Amino acid sequence: MAQKPSIPKGTRDFGPQEMARRNYIFNTIRQVYALYGFQQIETPAMENLSTLMGKYGEEGDKLLFKILNSGDFMRGIQTEELAEGATGHLAARLCEKGLRYDLTVPFARYVVQHRDELSMPFRRYQIQPVWRADRPQKGRYREFYQCDADVVGSDSLLNEVELMQIVDTVFRRFGIRVVIKINNRKILSGIAEMIGAADKIVDITVAIDKLDKIGLDAVNEELRQGGLDEKAIAALQPIISLSGTNAQKMATMREALAQSETGLRGIDEVEYVLNQYQAVASEQSATLELDLTLARGLNYYTGCIFEVKALDVEIGSITGGGRYDNLTGIFGMPGLSGVGISFGADRIYDVLNQLDLYPEEVTTATQLLFINFGERETAYCLPIAAQARQAGVRCEIYPDATKMKKQMQYANQKQIPFVALAGETEMAAGRVTLKNMITGEQTLLTADEMIAAIKG
Amino acid sequence: MAQKPSIPKGTRDFGPQEMARRNYIFNTIRQVYALYGFQQIETPAMENLSTLMGKYGEEGDKLLFKILNSGDFMRGIQTEELAEGATGHLAARLCEKGLRYDLTVPFARYVVQHRDELSMPFRRYQIQPVWRADRPQKGRYREFYQCDADVVGSDSLLNEVELMQIVDTVFRRFGIRVVIKINNRKILSGIAEMIGAADKIVDITVAIDKLDKIGLDAVNEELRQGGLDEKAIAALQPIISLSGTNAQKMATMREALAQSETGLRGIDEVEYVLNQYQAVASEQSATLELDLTLARGLNYYTGCIFEVKALDVEIGSITGGGRYDNLTGIFGMPGLSGVGISFGADRIYDVLNQLDLYPEEVTTATQLLFINFGERETAYCLPIAAQARQAGVRCEIYPDATKMKKQMQYANQKQIPFVALAGETEMAAGRVTLKNMITGEQTLLTADEMIAAIKG
Repeated sequence: MAQKPSIPKGTRDFGPQEMARRNYIFNTIRQVYALYGFQQIETPAMENLSTLMGKYGEEGDKLLFKILNSGDFMRGIQTEELAEGATGHLAARLCEKGLRYDLTVPFARYVVQHRDELSMPFRRYQIQPVWRADRPQKGRYREFYQCDADVVGSDSLLNEVELMQIVDTVFRRFGIRVVIKINNRKILSGIAEMIGAADKIVDITVAIDKLDKIGLDAVNEELRQGGLDEKAIAALQPIISLSGTNAQKMATMREALAQSETGLRGIDEVEYVLNQYQAVASEQSATLELDLTLARGLNYYTGCIFEVKALDVEIGSITGGGRYDNLTGIFGMPGLSGVGISFGADRIYDVLNQLDLYPEEVTTATQLLFINFGERETAYCLPIAAQARQAGVRCEIYPDATKMKKQMQYANQKQIPFVALAGETEMAAGRVTLKNMITGEQTLLTADEMIAAIKG
Repeated sequence: MAQKPSIPKGTRDFGPQEMARRNYIFNTIRQVYALYGFQQIETPAMENLSTLMGKYGEEGDKLLFKILNSGDFMRGIQTEELAEGATGHLAARLCEKGLRYDLTVPFARYVVQHRDELSMPFRRYQIQPVWRADRPQKGRYREFYQCDADVVGSDSLLNEVELMQIVDTVFRRFGIRVVIKINNRKILSGIAEMIGAADKIVDITVAIDKLDKIGLDAVNEELRQGGLDEKAIAALQPIISLSGTNAQKMATMREALAQSETGLRGIDEVEYVLNQYQAVASEQSATLELDLTLARGLNYYTGCIFEVKALDVEIGSITGGGRYDNLTGIFGMPGLSGVGISFGADRIYDVLNQLDLYPEEVTTATQLLFINFGERETAYCLPIAAQARQAGVRCEIYPDATKMKKQMQYANQKQIPFVALAGETEMAAGRVTLKNMITGEQTLLTADEMIAAIKG
């Protein structure tokens, strides 16, 4: 036999069981998005490279998959251009289109292109694959799904509150215990403003993040080495050692940032979200907690920033998001504020696997297999199978009249919980023998009784 | 403002309403596939070009979207190769990967690659986009979804019967009246054999297809011009004029093809499928009828061939399929027979639109909008909204406390059927005013009553 065919590195096939699990994840997220009035859209896999280039930084441009122009892709390309070698310029001459790199830029493009058709505020969700020419490694793929929800055209913090409720509902439905961490870009800006070091935000959050591991003295030493003066370090002390309930933390921060208008606005925003979330949270709800070390997406988030961590599995953030103020500015439509979240489907899949949290019905595909004893018996089973399907029972008739053993093996491999047998005796009695594949129990039943037994 | 951004020609954005309709189509097909024990798989958008090239003919190779190698895509390419211009050779040097062109070749690749993990017969379905660099025109896109189901590893005609039942069930669920046409490659081979003109099959089916339009004499004249001798034309007469019930047609064909073993086997196959289908069909079921002019996919189908036509809309085939004998041979795994169908989602979408057949719940997204009167009122509404969502009601709180008129306009644009108002009076009474946006009726209700009114 020839060499087995393969797929490009960093891509995956999803078999029946993986797909059943992935569908469970996507459907759960989809249903919760819909409960909050988010509507689905889809954009093409290919976008014009002019839409994608320059949106993800220089590194991002290199990670875009570019599509060779169809037809005469060499037309008009000069020898000098070819002599340049594999530059961005030559790539852009050979390719007009690229595969989407995330769902955010295509969404911004969509909003601008369809601005006249959309009711603002526009709440959309989108679940589609994205492609990145990253070096593949464990947990990092060149094709993966993103599941984003965003509201654009509204400054209201109520959107942040509802997104936190969505996160909470989704993870409760999954049975995954999580903590939702919240921060605010304006608080971080306030801190930087207060100590007069706007360029040091990331250094400061990284240092604070090490508090538990290396202790206060070492953190301060690190800040000193990073170029902060003693006055700034002193001012940072209450912030570095921040602890207690959310309310206590808020009070400390309010005092520490009393001189920064921006900082105080950040605190107000977080406080509103915390309070409103708490007011509708149940006992099972995820904890929402202020975490100043949360510094994701600082180059585009302008208000609240969120991140979700699983409590029972060691894994990075499984969901994240935040508010941005100028999503569509890059396409010439300024002043549109938005806030969004993105569930990390691949990591959620890993968490559900590790904790074995899939409901049984997710992994049961076919519920009933009719054993094939020959043409007459099959003709007898066909209307019974039709009736079972009518009642919503997922069933198969084994297509070939092969050995019983092989057919039972098939049922076992596919983990089919029930098998129906109909030979001479059953046909004469107008019944089938239903075998429960787990208990081994066999019962002679009418079609109606069989359906009731499977559905019950 | 800058020029509006756009998307590559031949591709589409799907907005909320289109997506709701498309999801209805895909979910209906998905549910019926599952009822028959088909399980979903997904394969990567990108395949190695070595997997795709040479599988769709020379024309097909040109229509593959190829992905420029990432990194140094010019490495190792010689000046002489560049001087060739835009040849297939140069494209293959610049690109190792391409976008999938259909779901069949990736499925064949999947079966061979995962042969050790699969239980045969393997019933899979797959609903994913495919890409073709075709010239875009009305109804022809460069990105479109295919929805395929196939059984491989079984020769049994029971698979054909079940696929016909699937087709019938799907279109009954849609409310689209259809006729399913069936033919068999072996019957066509038998005809060619009988008249000694194996290369004339397509000419013959094309000529027969014109019978209604141009009449028997003209059909015979066309066959004569096509190079058939008088004896062959005489032998074809009962076949050209074939009419009556399926049973009458089968009897006529049996006589006409009495000398061809292959032809008779084709008739046996069609007869089995017709009879078994008929035995479980209900009064509402689609008619299944023999149609000798059906000659799709003659270069790969080896047994039954099907095609579905809508009765109430002028449009081409909306579903098709057939049996093939050597799906995986191209990847070095011979002898695996299969049979499959493919629903044409874009055409089904058009038919459902033209006949206005979407159920109301498909197009209703958000069911309830809470009007935003300010911060206090919103805090009052949040737990009520949470309770409604808990009960499965899809609702939104308008995020900003803007003018009432603007909020009502939003409800109208999104076609939200209910609006909840809660001001001083309602808050004092622990109730909300529910407005039915269709009748205009307003009622003061408790949260429970409101939920019941919306769900009822």
